[in-house]
Amino acid sequence: MSFPRVGVIGAGQLARMMAVPANDLGIDFKVFAAIPNDSAAQVSHFVLGDYTNVDSVLEFAKSCDVLTFEHELVPQSVIKAVEAAGIKVYPRSQSFTYSQDKLEMRKKIAELNLPNPKWQKYQGEGCEIGFPLIAKLPSGGYDGRGVFQIDSEAQLQELHTKAGTLLLEEKLNFDYEISVMVARSPHDQAATWPATLTIQSDGICTSTVTPVPEISDALANKVQAAALEIASGISLVGVMAVEMFILGENFYINELALRPHNSGHWSIEGSETSQFEQHLRAILDLPLGSTALRTKFTVMGNVLGGEKSDMYRPYLHLMARAPNLKFHQYGKEVKPGRKIGHVTMCGENLLQLQQEVAHAVDYMNGVIDE
Amino acid sequence: MSFPRVGVIGAGQLARMMAVPANDLGIDFKVFAAIPNDSAAQVSHFVLGDYTNVDSVLEFAKSCDVLTFEHELVPQSVIKAVEAAGIKVYPRSQSFTYSQDKLEMRKKIAELNLPNPKWQKYQGEGCEIGFPLIAKLPSGGYDGRGVFQIDSEAQLQELHTKAGTLLLEEKLNFDYEISVMVARSPHDQAATWPATLTIQSDGICTSTVTPVPEISDALANKVQAAALEIASGISLVGVMAVEMFILGENFYINELALRPHNSGHWSIEGSETSQFEQHLRAILDLPLGSTALRTKFTVMGNVLGGEKSDMYRPYLHLMARAPNLKFHQYGKEVKPGRKIGHVTMCGENLLQLQQEVAHAVDYMNGVIDE
Repeated sequence: MSFPRVGVIGAGQLARMMAVPANDLGIDFKVFAAIPNDSAAQVSHFVLGDYTNVDSVLEFAKSCDVLTFEHELVPQSVIKAVEAAGIKVYPRSQSFTYSQDKLEMRKKIAELNLPNPKWQKYQGEGCEIGFPLIAKLPSGGYDGRGVFQIDSEAQLQELHTKAGTLLLEEKLNFDYEISVMVARSPHDQAATWPATLTIQSDGICTSTVTPVPEISDALANKVQAAALEIASGISLVGVMAVEMFILGENFYINELALRPHNSGHWSIEGSETSQFEQHLRAILDLPLGSTALRTKFTVMGNVLGGEKSDMYRPYLHLMARAPNLKFHQYGKEVKPGRKIGHVTMCGENLLQLQQEVAHAVDYMNGVIDE
Repeated sequence: MSFPRVGVIGAGQLARMMAVPANDLGIDFKVFAAIPNDSAAQVSHFVLGDYTNVDSVLEFAKSCDVLTFEHELVPQSVIKAVEAAGIKVYPRSQSFTYSQDKLEMRKKIAELNLPNPKWQKYQGEGCEIGFPLIAKLPSGGYDGRGVFQIDSEAQLQELHTKAGTLLLEEKLNFDYEISVMVARSPHDQAATWPATLTIQSDGICTSTVTPVPEISDALANKVQAAALEIASGISLVGVMAVEMFILGENFYINELALRPHNSGHWSIEGSETSQFEQHLRAILDLPLGSTALRTKFTVMGNVLGGEKSDMYRPYLHLMARAPNLKFHQYGKEVKPGRKIGHVTMCGENLLQLQQEVAHAVDYMNGVIDE
């Protein structure tokens, strides 16, 4: 019997949700967790260790046929050490660069002739972009961390003194933000899903709508084509989120995340193949699954920790109110602002879906109580 | 935090598939397995033990808020002991009787004024049903085991001598067989899914189609209403399959199975709420989920063990051929005729779905090689 062994560095909710299609496909699946109570460790086989420790990761990797990871914090040196040991690890270190280093990402997008916002590397002088502008730490940031709005030269200097080299970008007055999920296999097969509208609050995604409502067919095709070009251009293996700004009929690449992504959670219910199954198919070099939509619209809402600590009791009200609302708990302790789960609803009436998802999220975290 | 602890007696594929919605809902889920390599034990927390041993089951039950089971072999005495200890166990022992004892089931269906085939209890004399007839062991049989076609008085006597009391039933010349899945909660909420066509070979279900094609609306409604009446009549808590024979516009109750059932596997992809999630909602007395169809037709095919022992390699061909085919492996060793997995496909073109599912099943078990 030849079911492959897949190991995931990291044991958060992404690995937890990847365990489901792994089990369905019969894949021998385990996660490299920090503690036994990590989200994914609660529901799958796990090995404990520190992902920054090359020796521990190597030992784990040697018990796997393919290794992958679910967050951007794994050091390049660790991924390279696994590659050097001859073990398959996807995405590859050279691809992962574009997820970890935003300056390299901007260069690559320019090289691919795809639309960047105006940008520059900033090392203390020669700012060529008008204020207000966006300054980013080249690496280490996510969910709005490491991203700053800068209104003046003085603010810029202050940040530079503290943080060193920066990526500066023009602040686009965009109409909305989208994400295009794309998957690619070593065999060069690639597939995208229709683009997702991502609605942010304080830099954190709060909800998504798939497909993007009222996007023109031409633009919808262009953004999917762009995601495919990037996937090929960076030799992606696995799934990736390409986050973009939309301004009229134009799009601008915002960020790349080389992993299953919050903006792809809708695909568990909304697509014939979820991003988690697709990631497994891609890294195992299996034929990719259909990315067709199962429904006209899918709305996803993130449940962020609030005042309520009990996430079970809300089921009584919410399940009675909306029998087609789907819940995904991450098994995490409730902390204010922390992503502890998400809910999804599929259907035809977008306004109703958005109202129900917003109600559910607010009810779960205690913003409303009826 | 008040997420309940659910324990399942048995660790086969039904418990394995129940683990998915349990994790999504944040339920603390574990299975009572015979060996660590049991299907469900591979993918969830487990306790090892013997389900016929009252003390072991009681100890397991005491670590759970609600207990359930995934097969008919758990002795009534064990379930009653758990009830006597004040621990919630669903389905209840008095309901479970109708799954374990086919004579009691026939009496109950008659009492509910629902259509039985002609039947009688047989203890060695007074056979009132014409040959050929069907003789069943009142308990212990499933997947065609314990069911015999009897063509003569001599055969009947021979079986009776070996097996004791029998349930005799007329051999109906039915048009086709269906199953209606139904769920009911302690709160008295109940829900059915549209009926499923079940296609059998040698007494084993090989594939299903949901909804039943070409059934009249009137009959489709009647069989769902009958399933709801039975659920209420036996005080069901959990999900149940009501298997029926269809002859023209008439239906006859064939069997009851008080658990998630092979004929409900289609619901994982095909319905807004799968039978596994619904079973959990029901036994936890949560509001039941929507049983709406996600697609026009869902076809499920059982993968039975054949000559091939490698169930991974077929993915290369099958995934390339049918990108919307969904696989469910049970993690079981391949043995001839054993159910080791199933595949599901959703869509509009029933003929194409049936052809693809049949091809996949035959390719996986080695009947065809291209």
